[in-house]
Amino acid sequence: MKSKKVAIVGASGYSGEVLVQLLLNHPHAELVAVTSRQNAGQTLAQVFPKFASHPKSKTLRFSEPNAAVLAQQAEVVFLALPHGVAAEFAVPLNAAGCVVIDLSADFRLRSAEVYKEFYAHDHPAPELLKTAVYGLPEVYREEIKKSLLIASPGCYPTSILLPTIPLLKAGLIQPTGIIADSLSGVSGAGRKAEVDYLFCECNESVRPYGVPKHRHLSEIEEQLSFAAGTKVTIQFTPHLIPVNRGILTTLYLAPAEAFGDAAGADAFGKKIAACYQQAYATEPFVRLLEGKALPDTKNVVGTNVCEFAWRLDPRTGRLIVMSAEDNVVKGASGQAVQSMNLVCGWPETSGLI
Amino acid sequence: MKSKKVAIVGASGYSGEVLVQLLLNHPHAELVAVTSRQNAGQTLAQVFPKFASHPKSKTLRFSEPNAAVLAQQAEVVFLALPHGVAAEFAVPLNAAGCVVIDLSADFRLRSAEVYKEFYAHDHPAPELLKTAVYGLPEVYREEIKKSLLIASPGCYPTSILLPTIPLLKAGLIQPTGIIADSLSGVSGAGRKAEVDYLFCECNESVRPYGVPKHRHLSEIEEQLSFAAGTKVTIQFTPHLIPVNRGILTTLYLAPAEAFGDAAGADAFGKKIAACYQQAYATEPFVRLLEGKALPDTKNVVGTNVCEFAWRLDPRTGRLIVMSAEDNVVKGASGQAVQSMNLVCGWPETSGLI
Amino acid sequence: MKSKKVAIVGASGYSGEVLVQLLLNHPHAELVAVTSRQNAGQTLAQVFPKFASHPKSKTLRFSEPNAAVLAQQAEVVFLALPHGVAAEFAVPLNAAGCVVIDLSADFRLRSAEVYKEFYAHDHPAPELLKTAVYGLPEVYREEIKKSLLIASPGCYPTSILLPTIPLLKAGLIQPTGIIADSLSGVSGAGRKAEVDYLFCECNESVRPYGVPKHRHLSEIEEQLSFAAGTKVTIQFTPHLIPVNRGILTTLYLAPAEAFGDAAGADAFGKKIAACYQQAYATEPFVRLLEGKALPDTKNVVGTNVCEFAWRLDPRTGRLIVMSAEDNVVKGASGQAVQSMNLVCGWPETSGLI
Amino acid sequence: MKSKKVAIVGASGYSGEVLVQLLLNHPHAELVAVTSRQNAGQTLAQVFPKFASHPKSKTLRFSEPNAAVLAQQAEVVFLALPHGVAAEFAVPLNAAGCVVIDLSADFRLRSAEVYKEFYAHDHPAPELLKTAVYGLPEVYREEIKKSLLIASPGCYPTSILLPTIPLLKAGLIQPTGIIADSLSGVSGAGRKAEVDYLFCECNESVRPYGVPKHRHLSEIEEQLSFAAGTKVTIQFTPHLIPVNRGILTTLYLAPAEAFGDAAGADAFGKKIAACYQQAYATEPFVRLLEGKALPDTKNVVGTNVCEFAWRLDPRTGRLIVMSAEDNVVKGASGQAVQSMNLVCGWPETSGLI
Repeated sequence: MKSKKVAIVGASGYSGEVLVQLLLNHPHAELVAVTSRQNAGQTLAQVFPKFASHPKSKTLRFSEPNAAVLAQQAEVVFLALPHGVAAEFAVPLNAAGCVVIDLSADFRLRSAEVYKEFYAHDHPAPELLKTAVYGLPEVYREEIKKSLLIASPGCYPTSILLPTIPLLKAGLIQPTGIIADSLSGVSGAGRKAEVDYLFCECNESVRPYGVPKHRHLSEIEEQLSFAAGTKVTIQFTPHLIPVNRGILTTLYLAPAEAFGDAAGADAFGKKIAACYQQAYATEPFVRLLEGKALPDTKNVVGTNVCEFAWRLDPRTGRLIVMSAEDNVVKGASGQAVQSMNLVCGWPETSGLI
Repeated sequence: MKSKKVAIVGASGYSGEVLVQLLLNHPHAELVAVTSRQNAGQTLAQVFPKFASHPKSKTLRFSEPNAAVLAQQAEVVFLALPHGVAAEFAVPLNAAGCVVIDLSADFRLRSAEVYKEFYAHDHPAPELLKTAVYGLPEVYREEIKKSLLIASPGCYPTSILLPTIPLLKAGLIQPTGIIADSLSGVSGAGRKAEVDYLFCECNESVRPYGVPKHRHLSEIEEQLSFAAGTKVTIQFTPHLIPVNRGILTTLYLAPAEAFGDAAGADAFGKKIAACYQQAYATEPFVRLLEGKALPDTKNVVGTNVCEFAWRLDPRTGRLIVMSAEDNVVKGASGQAVQSMNLVCGWPETSGLI
Repeated sequence: MKSKKVAIVGASGYSGEVLVQLLLNHPHAELVAVTSRQNAGQTLAQVFPKFASHPKSKTLRFSEPNAAVLAQQAEVVFLALPHGVAAEFAVPLNAAGCVVIDLSADFRLRSAEVYKEFYAHDHPAPELLKTAVYGLPEVYREEIKKSLLIASPGCYPTSILLPTIPLLKAGLIQPTGIIADSLSGVSGAGRKAEVDYLFCECNESVRPYGVPKHRHLSEIEEQLSFAAGTKVTIQFTPHLIPVNRGILTTLYLAPAEAFGDAAGADAFGKKIAACYQQAYATEPFVRLLEGKALPDTKNVVGTNVCEFAWRLDPRTGRLIVMSAEDNVVKGASGQAVQSMNLVCGWPETSGLI
Repeated sequence: MKSKKVAIVGASGYSGEVLVQLLLNHPHAELVAVTSRQNAGQTLAQVFPKFASHPKSKTLRFSEPNAAVLAQQAEVVFLALPHGVAAEFAVPLNAAGCVVIDLSADFRLRSAEVYKEFYAHDHPAPELLKTAVYGLPEVYREEIKKSLLIASPGCYPTSILLPTIPLLKAGLIQPTGIIADSLSGVSGAGRKAEVDYLFCECNESVRPYGVPKHRHLSEIEEQLSFAAGTKVTIQFTPHLIPVNRGILTTLYLAPAEAFGDAAGADAFGKKIAACYQQAYATEPFVRLLEGKALPDTKNVVGTNVCEFAWRLDPRTGRLIVMSAEDNVVKGASGQAVQSMNLVCGWPETSGLI
């Protein structure tokens, strides 16, 4: 299989670290450049001691990011940059023919207005919003294969969209009243030197934040609206939990039809099960839990899997779906690599299992 | 102030440990007996090394539980026993004139039928359900003062009831559609030698459990129904979080009136604020957060305080209330001591601040 | 008992926070001022939400530190400042007659040369080194009572000195070859926004640091030398452990006489036991563990107790002593309050039990 | 490369879990059987949900352990059993021609007397002690390749032996006075339902245990004695630390020659560096840290690497060596797989990088 040269721009955060790990061990991608303003000149081994045993870690050095140079070096470029900055690289790299896989929020939305509402500044490259593809392979596999600009989804959105989109598409749940209550590990806050994320401030602490209008709502609602065929507005409450990695999302959903008592729940449950089977039975990175099993972040951390379970509650008439994923793998870098595999024509699971 | 002799039956678990701590340092209560089948004969210092510096810890020994003996020794007896067992002690102790403060679920419900539905066995002493008072001082202060049998509330219920009852009583929220999403520290599972609660099974893990019908629903719904004046059925999802202590509950509530846009939210918000002010402004153990502050378990752990904040979301029309408490203090032993203070005529905050 | 007005300079770190907590609840001290450059103007409740239920927390505001103003306000001033800065306040406050209790390293040494060797700058007020008392009450109780300037010991030193000094004084161990291997919770690093102390960098991580010449060596060796009557040089290795609070120190000591086999160990052990009994049997904040018990930080966190156990190893001829304390209570703020109690003539345990 | 069939006896603990993970993903080994008395009949996916996405996890079922059956199924058998039990399987499996890789302590010692001293029962198969090879590939590579019975080392021993053996062999350190102070994650205690290892007992706790005579001393001292050519007795203190995985060991060693001041340390340091270079420069799983780097368990967890750094202290004349490893990978299952690779003639790093 033909290998390709890949680069990472902004590789010194937690997503960048996982990207480096996945690409160093990828069977077809060859990591040729990593950039970081703050770490320029240092080797991979110096910045990430845990990779020091990899032969490339002592020779590959961080460089200052430069789009023109990167376009010469690599055929695929991952952007692990803050929102608002990614466009500076995406535009020239795309122009030079590079595939760009952006882990920021910059190209996840179709609407520059919604972007401005949620990110508080004008979109830096609105013309690219038309060509970018939302990098959720389970939903946009074919589009990703043909795209030059892939906007890899956010961590919370992935945990919410995967369990919800098939139900909306099948008309099994109402598009109104959706509630997503999410719990995230601290790596979601990034490798930022802020007091709020110090060990002593997070350990033995559980807290909500960003209530009620977190930025990820914009992409979640846009994607749910596409699935439902109507505008969807949801309730989303993120919480910070003292684990390094992992997101656990609990979804409260209203079935499209009242299913009634336990017998009705059985009947309606068969439809739910069939819908999920059809959507995900052959997906390598979605795991439908069976029997009494409920999701647990410890069973997905370090993998590119999103697992979930659901329950119908005859007492309230609601459908509860609970999902778990690793926020920096399936919720970020693993999913980005999955998109790379698709766009490069490699087996989708390459380097991910 | 006249002191009283108190005893604890079943003092070797986490709630028992906190009870011991609070009572050893209480200005008016004198801890005279602690019982535990498994630790009988050992001193407090041997079972709880952290109390070893307290003078009484080397002389007070655990004994086999015996209601007749306890009735001789103490005027107030705390029961920290599994449900189904507490009645064995409550009946003879009450008959002997002792005040019983029960931390189990046995006397929290008014209905023996609901008890059987949720606890899967007949109620062991249904006649006492009439005399027992639900030990939530902020709601039943006067009843507690006069009671011989106080059923101290569960940890989850406390975190849900305190923020919800005033709103229901004031008719500010609808009694339908209430969702409580709760996150609990591992001490809530008790000091039981089970694989599920080993360090390596809980650390770096976040998981829901008991979905969709947790036992605590029974007392939550009964109390909410009393407040609403109509039968209330709620959705409740508990999650296990890797902290020792603390519960964080996020409540999704439907305002009784549609408040509309941001301006409407301001107006309706004033009603919420006024309702909470009226209910809790003078309560020593309820903290209404102000400004941008959101609850954080680390700010309440080790205290008898339940703190909460609320937000109106004009995008969804919902009211979000978030509460935090220490599950073994305000959610168990602290609240039980608060009830003891009331029934003994001592200042309500004695030994708790 | 006559109360006194006290102030804290630099109260926004972890030691400051515990000082605030202890002083808010102290029966004789009245906290009248807290200073912090970064938090000036904010109330205690705003900076430390966990104290928000204390009546004083909403009225007491942080001010800019000003020695002249503080000298007017308070009779006792705690300095919780970085080393090198404390002298700026200690000099004028002492001159104005205030008792100063300094939690920094500035006045812990008798030698300005050693200070410069370990802290890499000239001592800012060498003349005060003669009047300052090392604030380890178990060793310098009488001196503390009469002092205007108390240098409260470091966290690691406290855990090392308490178990070692009596043995050196009694000539039971050799003054050479002492090794102290210490494990500290992350609060020891302070509330500093540095990447090294982020949750994700500390959680699931165990690491040594500052090897082989940590600054605390200077005061440890000076105090051990005083006890031994000869210059003592020790080996000290600190490690960072993912807990919020607590220090566990394991000491490797060479008995002054070869004790031989198990029988010899019994005989020599009686001398160790007697030595510790004599030194600490009546000390309120030193706990000698008995039987099979070994120290555990969870049994001392939140208390002003240092607990320890010892073992003689007939296989190696060594004495192993293991101690545990809360690094911000007995290792910092609690010990400082203990000194305050002494210097103010209050019961030594006031506000600490 | 010719693949082989392998089995695991006793695969339900933490070491077993990692073995399953490594063998499911191994390029040459084919996992054909896993046994567990308590889980017999269940699939891998049921016992270890995290492997549920592996195709084999739903078909491979735990069986009752039976040596005769295993000898039919597999050419290589891993024993992850308690000490004292492993021999029951090792004897018949070896007799049937299977390679046995034992993770218990049963075959690590050459001396049945020492075994009895430390394990408190007669050795169950003393005749095998002569044929067994201590499975530390960096020391016994050639012997492992030819062995039918490989005794995989303990977790603590690996972290102590790798940094110490080359120094002893080179005569650079004295064989007396060695101290090893080790910190282990809780997985080292196994997946046992005991109160001591509950989350709430380990979290926010740091504690020594097994002082002064831990069982691992027997194999450590035997191996160090072989390296030194003289009987070595060491001091070893294990501590329990609230992380899932990882061991950090700090070694206090006496150089064979006094190196004197800083200049002498430079000169002697060159010898240490050269010794380690010679021993480990080409070893795939030993990482010599350079510059200011110190070991950190988070940089080795999940890998088969043992990393270490050393410092000479001119103040004390000592050599300090600090090592980190994953206790269930390099300290158990990873090292066992490394031995399997050797004995099977596969590249030593197969399935481990």
